[in-house]
Amino acid sequence: MSEYRGYEGNSLEFLKANKIAVGDSVKIIADIAYSGIIMPRYEHSDDKHIVLKLKNGYNVGLEIAEIKNIEKNQDTEKIIEKSERIEKIEGLPKILLLSTGGTIASKVDYRTGSVTPVLTAEELNASVPELAKIANIDAEVIFSEYSENIQPEHWLQIAKKINEYSKSDYAGIIIAHGTDTMHYTSSFLSFALAGFSIPIVLVGSQRSSDRASSDAALNLIGATKFITTSNTKGVYVVMHHDENDETIACHIGTRVRKNHTSKRGAFQTIGDNPAFIIAENQIQKNIKEDFFKINEFYPRINLDTKVVLVKYHPGYDPGLLEKIIEMGYKGIIFEGTGLGHIGRTMYDSVKKANEKGIFLGMTSQCIDGRVRMTVYESGRDLLNLGIIPLENMIPEVALVKTMWAIGNSRNIEEIKKIMLRNIASEISN
Amino acid sequence: MSEYRGYEGNSLEFLKANKIAVGDSVKIIADIAYSGIIMPRYEHSDDKHIVLKLKNGYNVGLEIAEIKNIEKNQDTEKIIEKSERIEKIEGLPKILLLSTGGTIASKVDYRTGSVTPVLTAEELNASVPELAKIANIDAEVIFSEYSENIQPEHWLQIAKKINEYSKSDYAGIIIAHGTDTMHYTSSFLSFALAGFSIPIVLVGSQRSSDRASSDAALNLIGATKFITTSNTKGVYVVMHHDENDETIACHIGTRVRKNHTSKRGAFQTIGDNPAFIIAENQIQKNIKEDFFKINEFYPRINLDTKVVLVKYHPGYDPGLLEKIIEMGYKGIIFEGTGLGHIGRTMYDSVKKANEKGIFLGMTSQCIDGRVRMTVYESGRDLLNLGIIPLENMIPEVALVKTMWAIGNSRNIEEIKKIMLRNIASEISN
Repeated sequence: MSEYRGYEGNSLEFLKANKIAVGDSVKIIADIAYSGIIMPRYEHSDDKHIVLKLKNGYNVGLEIAEIKNIEKNQDTEKIIEKSERIEKIEGLPKILLLSTGGTIASKVDYRTGSVTPVLTAEELNASVPELAKIANIDAEVIFSEYSENIQPEHWLQIAKKINEYSKSDYAGIIIAHGTDTMHYTSSFLSFALAGFSIPIVLVGSQRSSDRASSDAALNLIGATKFITTSNTKGVYVVMHHDENDETIACHIGTRVRKNHTSKRGAFQTIGDNPAFIIAENQIQKNIKEDFFKINEFYPRINLDTKVVLVKYHPGYDPGLLEKIIEMGYKGIIFEGTGLGHIGRTMYDSVKKANEKGIFLGMTSQCIDGRVRMTVYESGRDLLNLGIIPLENMIPEVALVKTMWAIGNSRNIEEIKKIMLRNIASEISN
Repeated sequence: MSEYRGYEGNSLEFLKANKIAVGDSVKIIADIAYSGIIMPRYEHSDDKHIVLKLKNGYNVGLEIAEIKNIEKNQDTEKIIEKSERIEKIEGLPKILLLSTGGTIASKVDYRTGSVTPVLTAEELNASVPELAKIANIDAEVIFSEYSENIQPEHWLQIAKKINEYSKSDYAGIIIAHGTDTMHYTSSFLSFALAGFSIPIVLVGSQRSSDRASSDAALNLIGATKFITTSNTKGVYVVMHHDENDETIACHIGTRVRKNHTSKRGAFQTIGDNPAFIIAENQIQKNIKEDFFKINEFYPRINLDTKVVLVKYHPGYDPGLLEKIIEMGYKGIIFEGTGLGHIGRTMYDSVKKANEKGIFLGMTSQCIDGRVRMTVYESGRDLLNLGIIPLENMIPEVALVKTMWAIGNSRNIEEIKKIMLRNIASEISN
């Protein structure tokens, strides 16, 4: 790794002039005093800042014009100290913070420049001192994985852990989670723990840690405020609403999708406003009181992973569908085109899949809107071949629901019934 | 089919009282006189209208309260007559209208209630009399398919047909196309015919024909105005911008996606404004003069369909990737999570695919935003395994481009070079 990786122009000269390189532990006097490690940069758009990783694990971008003094620390060894235990204030609501990894719980390895998920839940809590004023937070690490490595077995692990607290005195449970697959996990929890007595809130950090700003703290504070003020239950994803530092969006766990690779407001409720918006300490509710109809809690923490998502496109080889059938899959979710179509080249293989008792569900690659298979000849043909139109279920949610439905059913008829029953607002009007 | 399919309440009673049923050819006096066929309805939200299919092939919703008289026509036989030839006005620009099918070129079979693509290009032209005032339009049918049945061989057919007119005196070429896969076709044409001397404009009709309103005419007029006033070249998709009847959006053929199953403004330019907006006869240009850098026209109308789109998700079975390798695929486009990730369970199979010389490209299922594989460990691992990050290319576009690149290359190095070269604005800043 280059000593000045990613720095150029003014910021590069500044570092060289001060004999400071990437990875150095430094003390900086600017508007206030900072102590931390000089981070590498991957963006080349700005030569006015240097990026410092603070001891609490979060990054800050410092404008070099504002820096009055910079010098190397002596303690280059132990970078992130064990945070002290936060004092608890009596009478505040209790929240359980479960960490599963991801950017939100990550520190940067300054030797390789990469971000690794090693911050403990306790450290995460301690790194955001504002939290202690809103709630008393107990923290626990379930595992530490970036979310692209989260698999259905992790969903089960998280659901089982949450289920241990179904009769606790917590006001809610926060799951710190990588953002990449957060909406898959929130879907599974929505089905497996439908009717859970307190809100379950997934929270992540979208702004990757090599950037000058992290949204981890704000999202965590938002999740905590949401639990203490929303007076609701269900599974939510709580993230930045937009680029505005003040606004937090609370999305229903089955209606949300990561729709941008990098920006803060990447998560969106599909086809609707977020269920709640928190802005300037005000909470705005966009859903009705009786939103979550299932009130009785009956956990069904099972799944079957023999489900595949088939995104249809021109040139899709039906031979691939044949392989899927041969491999013993039990469910196929089509991401069809438009209102829910696939080309007629697929019909023979679809017929075969149906005859084998494979569950066949139709969603749309348009993402937004509802499948409607009665308008065109081809849609009707597909209905006749046994494909079930899944209303406006988001394809990824339909995939997760099918895994869950198969894991909790005895036969195909039961699966079909569950798939069309609205369990956790995965189907909306 | 029920005689009154889809009608209920007031509209059902109205039909019964007048002894009129679905499929009847009628004459109606309301604000003006209408002649057409009573259409079945699939929506049950409204009992105030009846839907009439006019002789020109388009639907109109008539409020029953406004109907002064309704009676059966005698000519129940020949419903859509051969349109007369439109008079051409000397001096107007010449446009070629090629029809490939889809809702825009469809009539409804009133016996089955289904929409079938049978309207000829000449009829399509004649059904929108406004067109003749803007341009002299020659019309031709290439084939008649709904777009879910359009396959890569159809793309070749369309491209070859267009290529016949590379030295014609047409001001532009309009392709009437089903909306479901219009953006796949526009992508292929963008690559295969990069640098074509006149604009190529795909136009469809999003509002399905069983509804009370069709946007076919407005989109066609928009496409015609676009060609005669935009002074540009390249491949575009021209469709309604939003629910507003007046605004037409012109999207770059490689940056557009159908993002809603049914609404008029379903097509969106990803991550940017549409290249042009036509509103109230004004054309607003949002792209720079030198937008299309490739000026020399050198058609490359080839492709190889041995390319597959792999949308990664938790629980994705690497065994499926193994099957894809065994089946002799030459290219795999991953729709990874977030910034371009797939789980580490996939690594062994990805390594094998790379060793076999399969082209491996990474896009994001977030759709919007850019893949960036240097931020996290897992991204770096994937780069080392030979996966090529495809910037902000839309997954579907990356798929089409890979088919095209493989069809026009001699080896994997050439494919990689083509894939990262910005040919038709498929990569943007």
